[in-house]
Amino acid sequence: MRIFGPTAIILGLASLLSEPGSAWAQDATAIQKSVGDLRVALDTVWVLVAGFLVFWMHAGFAMLEAGLCRAKNTIAILYKNFGVVAVSSIAFWIIGFALMFGDGNTLFGTKGLFVMGTDNSPAMGDAYKGVFDALNWTGIPLMAKFFFQLVFAATAATIVSGCVAERIHFSSFMIFSFVLVAIIYPIQGHWIWGGGWLAKLGFLDFAGSTVVHSVGGWAGLAGIIVLGPRMGKYEAAGRVTPIPGHNMPLVTLGGFILWLGWFGFNPGSTMGTSDPSLIAHIAVTTNLAAAAGVISSSLTSRFMFGKADLSMSVNGALAGLVAITAPCAFVTPAVSILIGAFAGFIVCLSVTFFDNRKIDDPVGALSVHLVCGIFGTLALGLFAVPALTPGGSAGLFYGGGYAFLIKQAIGVVAVGAFTFTLSLILWKVVKAIIGMRVDPEDENTGLDLAEHGMEAYPR
Amino acid sequence: MRIFGPTAIILGLASLLSEPGSAWAQDATAIQKSVGDLRVALDTVWVLVAGFLVFWMHAGFAMLEAGLCRAKNTIAILYKNFGVVAVSSIAFWIIGFALMFGDGNTLFGTKGLFVMGTDNSPAMGDAYKGVFDALNWTGIPLMAKFFFQLVFAATAATIVSGCVAERIHFSSFMIFSFVLVAIIYPIQGHWIWGGGWLAKLGFLDFAGSTVVHSVGGWAGLAGIIVLGPRMGKYEAAGRVTPIPGHNMPLVTLGGFILWLGWFGFNPGSTMGTSDPSLIAHIAVTTNLAAAAGVISSSLTSRFMFGKADLSMSVNGALAGLVAITAPCAFVTPAVSILIGAFAGFIVCLSVTFFDNRKIDDPVGALSVHLVCGIFGTLALGLFAVPALTPGGSAGLFYGGGYAFLIKQAIGVVAVGAFTFTLSLILWKVVKAIIGMRVDPEDENTGLDLAEHGMEAYPR
Amino acid sequence: MRIFGPTAIILGLASLLSEPGSAWAQDATAIQKSVGDLRVALDTVWVLVAGFLVFWMHAGFAMLEAGLCRAKNTIAILYKNFGVVAVSSIAFWIIGFALMFGDGNTLFGTKGLFVMGTDNSPAMGDAYKGVFDALNWTGIPLMAKFFFQLVFAATAATIVSGCVAERIHFSSFMIFSFVLVAIIYPIQGHWIWGGGWLAKLGFLDFAGSTVVHSVGGWAGLAGIIVLGPRMGKYEAAGRVTPIPGHNMPLVTLGGFILWLGWFGFNPGSTMGTSDPSLIAHIAVTTNLAAAAGVISSSLTSRFMFGKADLSMSVNGALAGLVAITAPCAFVTPAVSILIGAFAGFIVCLSVTFFDNRKIDDPVGALSVHLVCGIFGTLALGLFAVPALTPGGSAGLFYGGGYAFLIKQAIGVVAVGAFTFTLSLILWKVVKAIIGMRVDPEDENTGLDLAEHGMEAYPR
Repeated sequence: MRIFGPTAIILGLASLLSEPGSAWAQDATAIQKSVGDLRVALDTVWVLVAGFLVFWMHAGFAMLEAGLCRAKNTIAILYKNFGVVAVSSIAFWIIGFALMFGDGNTLFGTKGLFVMGTDNSPAMGDAYKGVFDALNWTGIPLMAKFFFQLVFAATAATIVSGCVAERIHFSSFMIFSFVLVAIIYPIQGHWIWGGGWLAKLGFLDFAGSTVVHSVGGWAGLAGIIVLGPRMGKYEAAGRVTPIPGHNMPLVTLGGFILWLGWFGFNPGSTMGTSDPSLIAHIAVTTNLAAAAGVISSSLTSRFMFGKADLSMSVNGALAGLVAITAPCAFVTPAVSILIGAFAGFIVCLSVTFFDNRKIDDPVGALSVHLVCGIFGTLALGLFAVPALTPGGSAGLFYGGGYAFLIKQAIGVVAVGAFTFTLSLILWKVVKAIIGMRVDPEDENTGLDLAEHGMEAYPR
Repeated sequence: MRIFGPTAIILGLASLLSEPGSAWAQDATAIQKSVGDLRVALDTVWVLVAGFLVFWMHAGFAMLEAGLCRAKNTIAILYKNFGVVAVSSIAFWIIGFALMFGDGNTLFGTKGLFVMGTDNSPAMGDAYKGVFDALNWTGIPLMAKFFFQLVFAATAATIVSGCVAERIHFSSFMIFSFVLVAIIYPIQGHWIWGGGWLAKLGFLDFAGSTVVHSVGGWAGLAGIIVLGPRMGKYEAAGRVTPIPGHNMPLVTLGGFILWLGWFGFNPGSTMGTSDPSLIAHIAVTTNLAAAAGVISSSLTSRFMFGKADLSMSVNGALAGLVAITAPCAFVTPAVSILIGAFAGFIVCLSVTFFDNRKIDDPVGALSVHLVCGIFGTLALGLFAVPALTPGGSAGLFYGGGYAFLIKQAIGVVAVGAFTFTLSLILWKVVKAIIGMRVDPEDENTGLDLAEHGMEAYPR
Repeated sequence: MRIFGPTAIILGLASLLSEPGSAWAQDATAIQKSVGDLRVALDTVWVLVAGFLVFWMHAGFAMLEAGLCRAKNTIAILYKNFGVVAVSSIAFWIIGFALMFGDGNTLFGTKGLFVMGTDNSPAMGDAYKGVFDALNWTGIPLMAKFFFQLVFAATAATIVSGCVAERIHFSSFMIFSFVLVAIIYPIQGHWIWGGGWLAKLGFLDFAGSTVVHSVGGWAGLAGIIVLGPRMGKYEAAGRVTPIPGHNMPLVTLGGFILWLGWFGFNPGSTMGTSDPSLIAHIAVTTNLAAAAGVISSSLTSRFMFGKADLSMSVNGALAGLVAITAPCAFVTPAVSILIGAFAGFIVCLSVTFFDNRKIDDPVGALSVHLVCGIFGTLALGLFAVPALTPGGSAGLFYGGGYAFLIKQAIGVVAVGAFTFTLSLILWKVVKAIIGMRVDPEDENTGLDLAEHGMEAYPR
């Protein structure tokens, strides 16, 4: 099945001893083609392997969220996390990818439904001829571009599942997820990664603190507001009733899976290997931010609650990871520690903040993905090293003044307003048509028996 | 330890300003060798990383099957899944690889015991001189070929463990597995992937719907028939007593692991990177089939049983994955959705079908691997796109008429008859010599205490 | 964002038809640079992906150790395994990497704090100019070198967590781990991998049977001695009271994760792809040793205890893996089976050996990492194939006499004496300043409630 390889080379060498001029030119052409083919192959392998790691994050979300819910809602949350990958895959294939990366206007793409249309990938730059110009900076086959972006899209939807856990109908969540991945996520993604207006403005988000994480958070916040808190959470006068998760090994496993998956998420967002130093740099900043997030959240939880809290530390790792996602390529390792540490700190405060406002977020997804997604995007506005950013954008502390920071803030606000508003409308439509919240007795029984007729741990 | 690299290049450049003709030829030779070396290195990295993902599937089988069994048989099923990797590794190293890929006749290989013998891999095609000609189309070192094929072989054996779960002796299963991987699996594998008679016929199975999955299923079916159903399963008059698994997070984790591992199984079966578009295409068809399997099995289970059933959806993902394994490289993305969706549908019917025949398959392995393995192989006969297949084989719906479909059917029948018959004989021999089924009181107590003297979850 | 690629090549071809001599030289230079860049990119991708797999081992340790402890100490052990990655990341970034790989003397490095200083990686060999000369044999960016070595360093610390489980204060362990990774681990690592005195002597340890595993074991042994056994373990007259773990699926999952991770640990220690045959060879020896360890430990446990013991078999796999870590690149596949099988045998004996001496090692970490780490290092002295080793070192059974074996023994003793002594002092300092062992009532209650105020499996 393979045509080129060592054999071809050996055979090719036979013809080398002819006249120098033209043979040399032919030979150089052939060699350069081989080298170019190899580059495409290597870039494709890297992007796909990184995409596999991002896919794996869905297992991490499933385990983390299942562990942080009660046993009686375990199947329900597992099923949402498993099913959302499926629904997202189909939605992004049909239309999401086209809206996000298809040629169109500065607001959304208008070409490329079903990932079809003219395309001569892996040709790059001006040599690229096709309907997905926004991705012409990466020299990989179209299907590799689609696969990598698909696993990102599904991540945004998965984040929502944690916010609405333990009280939402299975089908309501699935329908929302389909539309989120088909329409809402790709439109704002087009603004930033698809050559839209925020990209033109100079807004930067390397791997998706805003595009993926805060968007998942905004959509989830809208869901929480429409759904209301779980029964019993805020009913005791003047205080919050903790509802502990049921399985800490699952939570920890989920944390490890997500940390691992982020090595695909951030370094893989290079979508190529032309700058291996950058890939390694991102792996290091990503890891240091996660590490700092663990340490600061452990210390903060010990100070705030008297005991080092494992679930807070797992969320601290994720907080650091979410926060470093936008800046990972553009800041120094030392700054990545700062960003991760601060994220680990604010995630603890944020949990209390939301609880005080009776915004019931069972797994802390808002604190992790929304709050730290915003923080990370703005932190890039503070710490961007001009030598590392495209166009030389500089953070406030790196000589850039407020100019770049303001662009980052505009992006945060615009994406937030768009996503939250559309999500709120969508949730209300779903609620009106098929309902959204399970009956109180079903919520009391648990969604596993009520919605799925099974228990997660039958005798 | 490393000899070649940027340093070598820089040093090499010093000698470039000599006379054009001969120096150019020398230089071109050197560069072409470097490029060829790089290609081998990249292909090796890709195949090994894909192999690691396939290895990881064993963890997926272990978690899935443990979750679908009762708590009292957890250690027994975990141990079988863990041990079978070990036994398979030794069996395939000693003789399996030689029977499957060694030079020989159209029925089995006769050379290459202990993965030894003449071999100048990574030389390819006609330049390859050695005893493993069937794999001369891939330009990677022999040990990489062996490693990748080994993790496939072990998969076939692992499938069996689910079929015979909760009632078989540990050692009986291990002995069967050894012979399966040493003899039965490699012989039929030789027919298809080792240059044997089915390969010559034009039968196609890109990554093993038949070679791996249906073979595991046939071997398991033979085991079920010899063993009989679990106590209590079919004893109530006129109805089937469901025996639910004990741990749904394990089932879901297993499902995610397997889905991830399939990105090694299918795309990795390119065994090289000469066609990166093909690798990406396979990643996409694989994922879409799994996604469609989840959705169709959820809808089907909701329709058949009244509730969306998570374990059915996990099996639906696997059904889609098994079915797309043969055709993944040869069909379009849209068709992969069709194939996956239909697999997710028939896996639900199949579970009922086997139960009605009192064929007790505790984890649904027959429905997933046997039924969908057959379906996927035949589906390739329906949907193969001639531009994508070697030799231009075309499916029934792609202008090929019945010719190719009939070849696929011949392969299905031949492999099925061979594997089932030999497995049946082997199980009966095992039963006669060391016994096969645990005592009723041990089955009642659970295999964990009876066979291993431990509990999975001691207090 | 990407500059080079197929486009650049196609553009570059336009200038090819000029006069042969100088144009050829220019062109050859450009092509050779492209090839060199590709090699760096491929090497970086391989080392990072291998590093991700090693990172993943931390999830394996967490699951394995949690499963082998009692439910009441689950959070405590999970938290230690999760937190130690964070603490190690910071410690190794600040000083560990500098002590281990920075230029200095034969005892430790003195340059490169915070992974900073002169460095022109990926330049190699004599072309390398910088403060990390010990790693100039690998042509990857500095941050890739750091990342890969970091995940190794954290592994050593994680091993300790198993030894001291179920009775140590969280903060005492974390402080010990910080110093272990900051100071103790890198100093002995400098001796062997940093160009220090053992490297100059000719001691070989390909991937760390000694550097990582036995060091983790020695540090853990010191901790066990200072801590004493768990309450109830050796209090019954004349016999050992077994304290079974609480969750065998976690143990098995951990075993699979570690086995998978080892495919990064050992093959990745090539830190490049210049010899793809070697990478594949190592993948095979690693897998065969693990397989043999499973089989021999199963048989041994069946013989010793009457029943095949799953936890012993998981430890048997790890024993084989630890033992093959030093020799994986330097021995034949057949010998790797021998080494793995013997490791699986001695791990069973060793568990009894330590229990008889009242050395309470809850998860068997000493038997796996210390005993088999020593064994593997010495086994290399027996079985090293001179054609495979740098400098042609030959094992006792391969014509080398005792010369090389004695060097290996010197390394084992020196590293053991150094690590054990410093660890003992460090543990005693930690004990004196902040205490080390939890109160008896807290130990009885369980560390989860006592130290972290939570239960792993709340109702």
